[in-house]
Amino acid sequence: MTGIRDVAREVGMSTASVSRALRGLPGVSPATRHRVLEAARRLGYVASPQAAGLASGTTRTIGVVVPFVTRWYFSWIVQGAQDRLRGEGYDLLLYNLGGKESARERLLATRYLAKRVDALLVLALTPTPEEQENLRSWDLPVGLVGAEAPGFCCVDIDDVGVSAQAVDHLVELGHERIAYVGGGLEDTLDHRAPRLRAEGWRAAMARHGLPLVPGYDEVGDFTMAGGERAGERLMELADPPTAIYAASDEMAIGVLRALRRAGRRTPQDVSVMGVDDHEMASFLDLTTVAQPVYEQGEAITAMLLAALRGELAAESPAGSPAGSPTNQGSATRRTFPTTLVVRSSTAPPGGTG
Amino acid sequence: MTGIRDVAREVGMSTASVSRALRGLPGVSPATRHRVLEAARRLGYVASPQAAGLASGTTRTIGVVVPFVTRWYFSWIVQGAQDRLRGEGYDLLLYNLGGKESARERLLATRYLAKRVDALLVLALTPTPEEQENLRSWDLPVGLVGAEAPGFCCVDIDDVGVSAQAVDHLVELGHERIAYVGGGLEDTLDHRAPRLRAEGWRAAMARHGLPLVPGYDEVGDFTMAGGERAGERLMELADPPTAIYAASDEMAIGVLRALRRAGRRTPQDVSVMGVDDHEMASFLDLTTVAQPVYEQGEAITAMLLAALRGELAAESPAGSPAGSPTNQGSATRRTFPTTLVVRSSTAPPGGTG
Repeated sequence: MTGIRDVAREVGMSTASVSRALRGLPGVSPATRHRVLEAARRLGYVASPQAAGLASGTTRTIGVVVPFVTRWYFSWIVQGAQDRLRGEGYDLLLYNLGGKESARERLLATRYLAKRVDALLVLALTPTPEEQENLRSWDLPVGLVGAEAPGFCCVDIDDVGVSAQAVDHLVELGHERIAYVGGGLEDTLDHRAPRLRAEGWRAAMARHGLPLVPGYDEVGDFTMAGGERAGERLMELADPPTAIYAASDEMAIGVLRALRRAGRRTPQDVSVMGVDDHEMASFLDLTTVAQPVYEQGEAITAMLLAALRGELAAESPAGSPAGSPTNQGSATRRTFPTTLVVRSSTAPPGGTG
Repeated sequence: MTGIRDVAREVGMSTASVSRALRGLPGVSPATRHRVLEAARRLGYVASPQAAGLASGTTRTIGVVVPFVTRWYFSWIVQGAQDRLRGEGYDLLLYNLGGKESARERLLATRYLAKRVDALLVLALTPTPEEQENLRSWDLPVGLVGAEAPGFCCVDIDDVGVSAQAVDHLVELGHERIAYVGGGLEDTLDHRAPRLRAEGWRAAMARHGLPLVPGYDEVGDFTMAGGERAGERLMELADPPTAIYAASDEMAIGVLRALRRAGRRTPQDVSVMGVDDHEMASFLDLTTVAQPVYEQGEAITAMLLAALRGELAAESPAGSPAGSPTNQGSATRRTFPTTLVVRSSTAPPGGTG
């Protein structure tokens, strides 16, 4: 069977250079790559990444567990991760849960992935203590985005602070009757953001001495359709809010639609704001708290790559009790800032944008 | 080293059942899976999918090449594919080109993927003759969505017919000055849809005896921002169109924004329509030609799975000339119907929705 040494001898290059050319890595000119591929084809050489993985103990693959790939936030995290992996010679195995608990169990509670990936990235899910123990037993770098757990690389935003930014803005405009539209079904998958943003809304309202009116805490499922239904219910209240803070732009867009259908004007009758700075937010002149999503995907991936190069100490030292926090270093934990973006969907009660 | 037989003996089950439990496949009760995992942990058993792949000659992995994972169309194709793969025990390797030619070359013009996947799905790219020859030499099932090539499984819509549906609708309303907003930069990656939809617009205009006014064929890059710039340029023409047909809803949304900024009303001053039935289309009351995207992802994946089970003859018979069309059977080729969805963004010239 033809080996990589045979190809290297044929073209008069090192096996390392031939390997780079065959794997399509950067730093190889098109002409050289063409010459190597030609020789490989002529000699009948077939590289087997699986055999290479068994030999070196690596799969050159990063697994990414995503709750919903069709949602804006997750697709941009994946884009950031893949752009960072490109050129490093790592492939991305995508595990899209689609909200299925059984899929989650298979990935996080079994050893299914342990030999299949070199590192694992988990988006917007907080692993249970049992799942954390299982993941630690793999002895691989694990990264979380929008969640945190001891011994893992973590990238997030301050979800309580996001709600403080939103409520402060609405209170400054003069609003007191401020409703919240947040998560629901997704919480069964233990997303941290819906819980913390709801807590942040309650804390900010309390800080300003404002009451939590019954019916003002709505479920929007982090979808446009869910936001629309939440907006409808809020407008049916005897004493509807003058401002609605939705925990995502997609839900806020649904709220805008419900208001329009109910004949309420934005912002004259009801102010609306979201979180994310989705590309539709500027189109619809939606006030929002912007978060850098692509950058979070890049940053967590850079951490995992550093861990794979042995440049991070993300794992507990041998002999230390399981779960002891060792990720205090700046390189395994990063919280990105969020920014209030004021557009014309928010204004003083009864005022104009 | 502990093998799967040791685990099977320990729990008193067949190796096949233990394998299903360890791989997280359906048909295993949670209690049984728990018992198997416990035994595997106790005995120190570690399954290696790579070793299993080398033994059986399969990787249990499907590769998916996606131009842009953050765009609505591609994310829903991936969702459909992954939902179809779930429970079949196949993983999805995601290759997101992000518009990079070098990434495309690595995936389609080298043997990088040949031993890494059991089947390959390519979205909205037409492989060049050289790439087709390379892909055929892998001897794996290959599926195309929104493209076609001999010897591959293909799923698409009638992109020429989509434009006919759009132009016919606008002409029926009484429009004659109909502009088109289509692709641009993406065409360097050889997407078929932008080319065919532009051809379909020209053919439909000719069929109705309508002139192709200079400046009415605009570049929108299949993004909202590109659509907005195209709409701005169209409104700066001395003789602007009374109707704009954009080849995607995302571009049509950009056009709507440009019209609003230019002080033109929709549909009274200018009718606008798109293609897709993006979830924003109903929110913005956008007339569109709807295509079933999720279903296309499911259908092409079902074809690849059938090919992997040996139930399709998608490959050329041995000895036949390379490139001879053998995919005439209904099971390797499927064109989905598209549907005109009339909302209030289109109306007779000067009329109301």
